[in-house]
Amino acid sequence: MEKYSVAMIGLGVMGANLLLNLERNGFSGVGFDINADSVTKFLEGPGKGKKVTGASSWSEVAEKLEKPRKVFILVPAGKPVDSVLGELSAVLEKGDVIVECGNSHYPDTERREAELSAKGFNFTGMGISGGEEGALWGPSMMPGGPREGYDRLAPSLEKIAAQVEDGPCVTYLGPGGAGHYTKMVHNGIEYGDMQLIAEAYDLLKRLGGLSNEELADVFGEWNQGELESFLIEITARIFQQKDEDGGYVVDKIMDTAAMKGTGTWTVQDAYGMAVPIPTIAAAVDARVISAMRGQRLAAAKSIPADVQPKPAADKKAWIDAVRAALYCAKTCSYAQGYAMLRTASEQHDWNLPFGEIARIWKGGCIIRARFLGSIQEAYRRDADLPNLLLDPFFKDELAGRMSAWRQVVVEGVKSGVPLPAMGGSLAYYDAYRTERLPANLVQAQRDLFGAHTYERLDREGSFHTHWN
Amino acid sequence: MEKYSVAMIGLGVMGANLLLNLERNGFSGVGFDINADSVTKFLEGPGKGKKVTGASSWSEVAEKLEKPRKVFILVPAGKPVDSVLGELSAVLEKGDVIVECGNSHYPDTERREAELSAKGFNFTGMGISGGEEGALWGPSMMPGGPREGYDRLAPSLEKIAAQVEDGPCVTYLGPGGAGHYTKMVHNGIEYGDMQLIAEAYDLLKRLGGLSNEELADVFGEWNQGELESFLIEITARIFQQKDEDGGYVVDKIMDTAAMKGTGTWTVQDAYGMAVPIPTIAAAVDARVISAMRGQRLAAAKSIPADVQPKPAADKKAWIDAVRAALYCAKTCSYAQGYAMLRTASEQHDWNLPFGEIARIWKGGCIIRARFLGSIQEAYRRDADLPNLLLDPFFKDELAGRMSAWRQVVVEGVKSGVPLPAMGGSLAYYDAYRTERLPANLVQAQRDLFGAHTYERLDREGSFHTHWN
Repeated sequence: MEKYSVAMIGLGVMGANLLLNLERNGFSGVGFDINADSVTKFLEGPGKGKKVTGASSWSEVAEKLEKPRKVFILVPAGKPVDSVLGELSAVLEKGDVIVECGNSHYPDTERREAELSAKGFNFTGMGISGGEEGALWGPSMMPGGPREGYDRLAPSLEKIAAQVEDGPCVTYLGPGGAGHYTKMVHNGIEYGDMQLIAEAYDLLKRLGGLSNEELADVFGEWNQGELESFLIEITARIFQQKDEDGGYVVDKIMDTAAMKGTGTWTVQDAYGMAVPIPTIAAAVDARVISAMRGQRLAAAKSIPADVQPKPAADKKAWIDAVRAALYCAKTCSYAQGYAMLRTASEQHDWNLPFGEIARIWKGGCIIRARFLGSIQEAYRRDADLPNLLLDPFFKDELAGRMSAWRQVVVEGVKSGVPLPAMGGSLAYYDAYRTERLPANLVQAQRDLFGAHTYERLDREGSFHTHWN
Repeated sequence: MEKYSVAMIGLGVMGANLLLNLERNGFSGVGFDINADSVTKFLEGPGKGKKVTGASSWSEVAEKLEKPRKVFILVPAGKPVDSVLGELSAVLEKGDVIVECGNSHYPDTERREAELSAKGFNFTGMGISGGEEGALWGPSMMPGGPREGYDRLAPSLEKIAAQVEDGPCVTYLGPGGAGHYTKMVHNGIEYGDMQLIAEAYDLLKRLGGLSNEELADVFGEWNQGELESFLIEITARIFQQKDEDGGYVVDKIMDTAAMKGTGTWTVQDAYGMAVPIPTIAAAVDARVISAMRGQRLAAAKSIPADVQPKPAADKKAWIDAVRAALYCAKTCSYAQGYAMLRTASEQHDWNLPFGEIARIWKGGCIIRARFLGSIQEAYRRDADLPNLLLDPFFKDELAGRMSAWRQVVVEGVKSGVPLPAMGGSLAYYDAYRTERLPANLVQAQRDLFGAHTYERLDREGSFHTHWN
């Protein structure tokens, strides 16, 4: 019987595309899905004429693979993954490699890795970013698990990944849940980026008076400079898109943002570790508030506006100020995401490669951006950097933009245009570089009502005052 | 053998004080602690001459109580509680009432309630606020569990609670974890209040140039008006407190705020339900950033300040503006906390009495304030109010203060004084009353890169665009 290089469990668009990507790069594959129709459709459709075959049972998947077997799983996160792993455990052998590619929550990945390694399997939990197109033409992949499993997968993963000037957008991130954790933080950062762009849009439209054509031009121009990124690029395209009736699609889309949960996981995990990520948290909040549209419309009607947005006098200067504010706030958002990765790496003993993470995010994924090259360089200068805001490059970049950033947030506050992410980023920045915060009062209050004690500036130890 | 009304398990200061409070109000008690010394010390110390006795074993606790027995537990949250419940289960009888009074996480309370009710016990999970003094002289108590358990406890609870003009600061909140949940949100709100006061202090000190004497006067004056509250009152006292050497204590306390976890639980739970509570989240973040003092000092040194706080020209006007901003932000913080209670009540089917919760918080607890009377009235006007910001009273109160609030946040942004809670509250307010947010762009982006579809303003349904 002819043997194949890899198997793909789950032939939805993502799984099918990843299998086609593998095949195109020289890895013949067995496609399997609990829905037999999906296998037939794949083989008669996109798989036609390719070095791919189907399987009609779990044991047939195992039989058709070269040993040690390499099995990719791309089914919905949660129970479907556990169900597939149960079936595979029964037909695979010790030393076989399983790589689970869904948006799994990392504690699930850690549990699965422990269970499967006890059975002698090599289990890799790998986050994939890039959507359906990315899966087909080159995604960014974030694998974690035993080193041995990664080494067996590396020849295929490094081929199918997006390629940037310094290598494929995949690297070994660490044991256990390190891969899915990194993907979770990627998604949190993606939420931050999207909200910051939305706030820039609001500022340019409501305070800059820009039309959709002008917005398309501005974002197109920004995409030539320091903000160059996939999200800025598609934003420029979005403002150009017209409807059947000739109107702009963006103006007809309801302002109720949905979400699928990875942003929430990111925020909850950050709070669990006591790492502040206010920009990302504000982005999650902003989606929720947008979705409370019924309440918003009622509030807009019943609470009269105390201020009205007034278009800026100098449109060109305003556009430049918003661009600067976006850059600064984006830097804070990434500083928070990386601070989170750093703390998680310490707590879980993952030894995450921060610079490499920036590198593999430079291509294939939703947050791909020129900016990530600057982060890569920051960690090249100092692999142990406590916070991106302390890197000399970013310090300079922000220094030159501070007054524009403050001006933009001031205008938002004055005109009632909510800037939770841009404003929250600035509060983070200002607090982070404040020598003396008013937390001494908080400690005094806690000592007064709860005898919680406090530390002092002038001597060591723990103190309690008998307050009058 | 003489029988006693209640037992107290755990004779730390909180437990001992609550037992003394019960005794003073006519409920004789049995004190027990796994540390036998604590029992002896209590009986020979504060319990001397009181209608209290000790016990030397779990069965003796049971023997000395009237039936149905009423047992209070005040031991550290977590495993100690489970351990005590295991011991009690072995010596108590069906129908006996257990009331656990620690800062337990409500999912633990729900689990314990289910286990103990299966054994025929009445288990109440009750949060207590007010610290050691409150426990002795009248705390605010938040009980949840079976109605029958509360009814048996009510005669004692209503006596020992703080008393306000319309009753004791205790009421039945609902089944399961309703009590500990309400206490958790109380603590989240407490974090918000404390951070907002800290920001007001920072604004008055750094931008108002106020001395400690002036700060004591200002907070003392504020405590005569709409901001009257325990936290404002103690803040005035704190600014008066001098050290042995004649200096002010507040100036010597290190600006590193600690915390014990209930604020974090509140934020994580809110994110789990998708209820935005940015003011409370900012308060938790602010404590964390304050505690990163090493990084802050390094950042303050290495990142030059781009702006310097400048004292306001008109000190009196500035003090009034800060007072107004504090009131507005506080209202947003409570609006968020109550929105959280509302959603939790629906999700857990608790039927929480929102107005009553405001009433029992008017006395005894850390957040006790005149302000809570206004919230009680808001729910009297509309028991189903979706958000406090929509209440006519608060709408008017905020309307008259908006320009001061915006001015204060603007000055903070301009001068680099971080206002995460005051500024975050304003962004929440502005977003909540914005008819059209820029979330349409977020939905367009999601549809473009992930085919997530969107809704439209002009027609019903779910749409997907083939983006150019």
